[in-house]
Amino acid sequence: MEGFGEYVDTNRDRFLAELCEVCAQPSIAAQGIGLEETASLVEQRLISLGAQVQRFEIDGSPPLLYAELGSGEKTMLVYNHYDVQPPDPLDEWDSSPFEPEVRDGRLYARGVADDKGDLFCRLQAIEAYQATVGPVPLRIKFVIEGEEEIGSPHLDTFAEAHPQLLQADGCLWETGNKDAARRTVLTLGVKGICYVELFAKTAARDLHSAWGGIIPNAAWRLVWALNTLKDEADHILVDGLMDHVQVPTEDELAQLASLPFDEDQERESLGFSRYVRDLTGVDLLVKHFYEPTCTICGLKSGYLEEGVKTVLPNRAMAKVDFRLVPDLTPDLVVELLRKHLDGQGFEDISITAKGGLMPARSSLDAPFVQACVAACEATYGEEPIIYPTSPGSGPLYTLSRETPAVMAGVAHADSRLHAPNENIYLQDYFEGIRFIGELIHRFAA
Amino acid sequence: MEGFGEYVDTNRDRFLAELCEVCAQPSIAAQGIGLEETASLVEQRLISLGAQVQRFEIDGSPPLLYAELGSGEKTMLVYNHYDVQPPDPLDEWDSSPFEPEVRDGRLYARGVADDKGDLFCRLQAIEAYQATVGPVPLRIKFVIEGEEEIGSPHLDTFAEAHPQLLQADGCLWETGNKDAARRTVLTLGVKGICYVELFAKTAARDLHSAWGGIIPNAAWRLVWALNTLKDEADHILVDGLMDHVQVPTEDELAQLASLPFDEDQERESLGFSRYVRDLTGVDLLVKHFYEPTCTICGLKSGYLEEGVKTVLPNRAMAKVDFRLVPDLTPDLVVELLRKHLDGQGFEDISITAKGGLMPARSSLDAPFVQACVAACEATYGEEPIIYPTSPGSGPLYTLSRETPAVMAGVAHADSRLHAPNENIYLQDYFEGIRFIGELIHRFAA
Repeated sequence: MEGFGEYVDTNRDRFLAELCEVCAQPSIAAQGIGLEETASLVEQRLISLGAQVQRFEIDGSPPLLYAELGSGEKTMLVYNHYDVQPPDPLDEWDSSPFEPEVRDGRLYARGVADDKGDLFCRLQAIEAYQATVGPVPLRIKFVIEGEEEIGSPHLDTFAEAHPQLLQADGCLWETGNKDAARRTVLTLGVKGICYVELFAKTAARDLHSAWGGIIPNAAWRLVWALNTLKDEADHILVDGLMDHVQVPTEDELAQLASLPFDEDQERESLGFSRYVRDLTGVDLLVKHFYEPTCTICGLKSGYLEEGVKTVLPNRAMAKVDFRLVPDLTPDLVVELLRKHLDGQGFEDISITAKGGLMPARSSLDAPFVQACVAACEATYGEEPIIYPTSPGSGPLYTLSRETPAVMAGVAHADSRLHAPNENIYLQDYFEGIRFIGELIHRFAA
Repeated sequence: MEGFGEYVDTNRDRFLAELCEVCAQPSIAAQGIGLEETASLVEQRLISLGAQVQRFEIDGSPPLLYAELGSGEKTMLVYNHYDVQPPDPLDEWDSSPFEPEVRDGRLYARGVADDKGDLFCRLQAIEAYQATVGPVPLRIKFVIEGEEEIGSPHLDTFAEAHPQLLQADGCLWETGNKDAARRTVLTLGVKGICYVELFAKTAARDLHSAWGGIIPNAAWRLVWALNTLKDEADHILVDGLMDHVQVPTEDELAQLASLPFDEDQERESLGFSRYVRDLTGVDLLVKHFYEPTCTICGLKSGYLEEGVKTVLPNRAMAKVDFRLVPDLTPDLVVELLRKHLDGQGFEDISITAKGGLMPARSSLDAPFVQACVAACEATYGEEPIIYPTSPGSGPLYTLSRETPAVMAGVAHADSRLHAPNENIYLQDYFEGIRFIGELIHRFAA
């Protein structure tokens, strides 16, 4: 690894400029904006590194890029996505989400942390490795899609059609982060997700609210139906759902107890006053990592603008996501939800499933996991913090199946993923390039 | 009344064109659009009839027009408003809301039924009376405001400052309608209204929904709080609120039983499948006319657009209106609501009162009510249907206080007030002009 660090230092400005260029390019999967342009930009960068690139467009999906480079005994599968979340609410950004801006050592842009920063970190590391060490000494397979933020609706089709492309000895997942104390975190799994839209429909059209005493109101129907899904103490009430949740083992509880989760700092950083049920300690972490969620992501009915409109709404909509732990699956949740609503007298509430992902977890003992740990120690000079799973989701199971997978990357505790003012530290970006170089070197050895 | 009818026939095209002109002028109080322009248009028409017009602009309100014309022993106060509801949802209109269009004998436009049709009906009747019978034989006092659809926030100030302008022997209220069987309806009162916005706020900003298991969600807080206000059988649960509601007397129940309310036709016309609690008959009418309502008019939180966004919302808002019967007042409802939410553990839900109106009712025996009944019989050849109150609201109490007041006008059962495709029948507009002529003649006699 002689000269690797110097090469990164020498090329700092260009490596940053290339990241800014891809972040300035909007790529909003939910709205179908800028996906082709972003895919082409990434594809050109892969080609410039000597990768063999294939484009897969499945049933009109934005391009999924599959790329291979390097050779050796080991194979590392690398997953990233070039799409980002919608930037709203726009008025809460301090700089424009698609005009990357450096302030106080951080780079602010939509998608910089989730996960264009990691994607470019990995690409720049390959350039630096080739320029200073030599040919990449293992086979690297990139899968880079443009639909992660809408639940990766076509990744499953790709994975089922091309299992040989996904054969690997280890899988480096899209992103990762430093924690609030700036310790490097490795994460060995993800929660699954089941995203649904619930609709209520009552009269043929919106009515004058003078009818409010005797004609059903779609907004009320939806509120009453939602209220049956979760109680005020955040217990999920969907009939039978919690029966599928595994209780953590004694070993898992002990590992949780060793995690440095700073409750007060998270609370201050994210600006809320108390955790649900006032949970603390291991109880809080069990709920966070080992239990499913039921989250209202959007709620819409009737008149939404400023001022007064006295209307009885005939339609109401809620977007709800469930984060899933083993053994919950997206199909099972939709089935339980339908039965639950019917059983509660809400046959009138329709459910539209908007995509789902399976939960997945890997073992600490796997050689790839151990190579990641060693690369962390070489880069950062200390052992990483290891989480059994992310509370978030990703199509890990879709690609990795039985391959050990690790999430490691350049975000941090205040990166504001999915929220206004998304950012990474420049330092983390450049150190992350070094980490990837170390991982290539150690996993190939 | 010799020649009155012929004069209206001769001037049909112009009377219609003048109505179209005022309907083509947007005047949306909730959004502050076109109010000055509309006020000026109405003012010119009043001046052309020989009225003395005064403009009142109170604390920056759109112009309130006060006009007097005619002379005699009796005085009739006439209330109308030139503002309209917002036109959304625009895509459900078959023609543009501000481009009046005649189809199948109806005129479609935002505000044509509520209540520019009645305003112009009354003005045209005065022209016809003056042209065919002679000078108006009683004192007519017009109060025409531009803020009715946002709860008339300045009418109270006007009324308190100028009680002498409101002295009258009878008060003709803004609008009225024919029922589904095309029978003329007179209504002797209105419900009051209390319109509030409820807000929930949790974290400092929207968060990634992976936090959904342990960080409070504003949308859930609002759903749970709303759920405590009304149950699934439409019983209002706000502590103490129903204690203030008068039970109807035996006489009132008997009058309700005589009302020709066609439950099936209303249901088909408005396109809903069942009344709340499956109520029928007098029970349904008691709830409609003699009980308050609690209606969600708008609901907003998190991501509202197409597609998937996995966000934990930090803010949520509901617009709620309560329609009030005696002895509920807007101030009392806000006070009870605050106490109720606090008592249920929702101190975090803030309440913003957005204006209110008192309930009011008049007696059937009053000479002005009887003159209205006689004018109906002369115009339409049959007795009107008489409702004790409208289920809707208006600033009746603010202006009329102890003066007997009647609601009579040119809307009909499918006029779609506050909704897309608002309309009136042309026949009702021209017959309504005749009714006003008869009322002037009979009340003055």
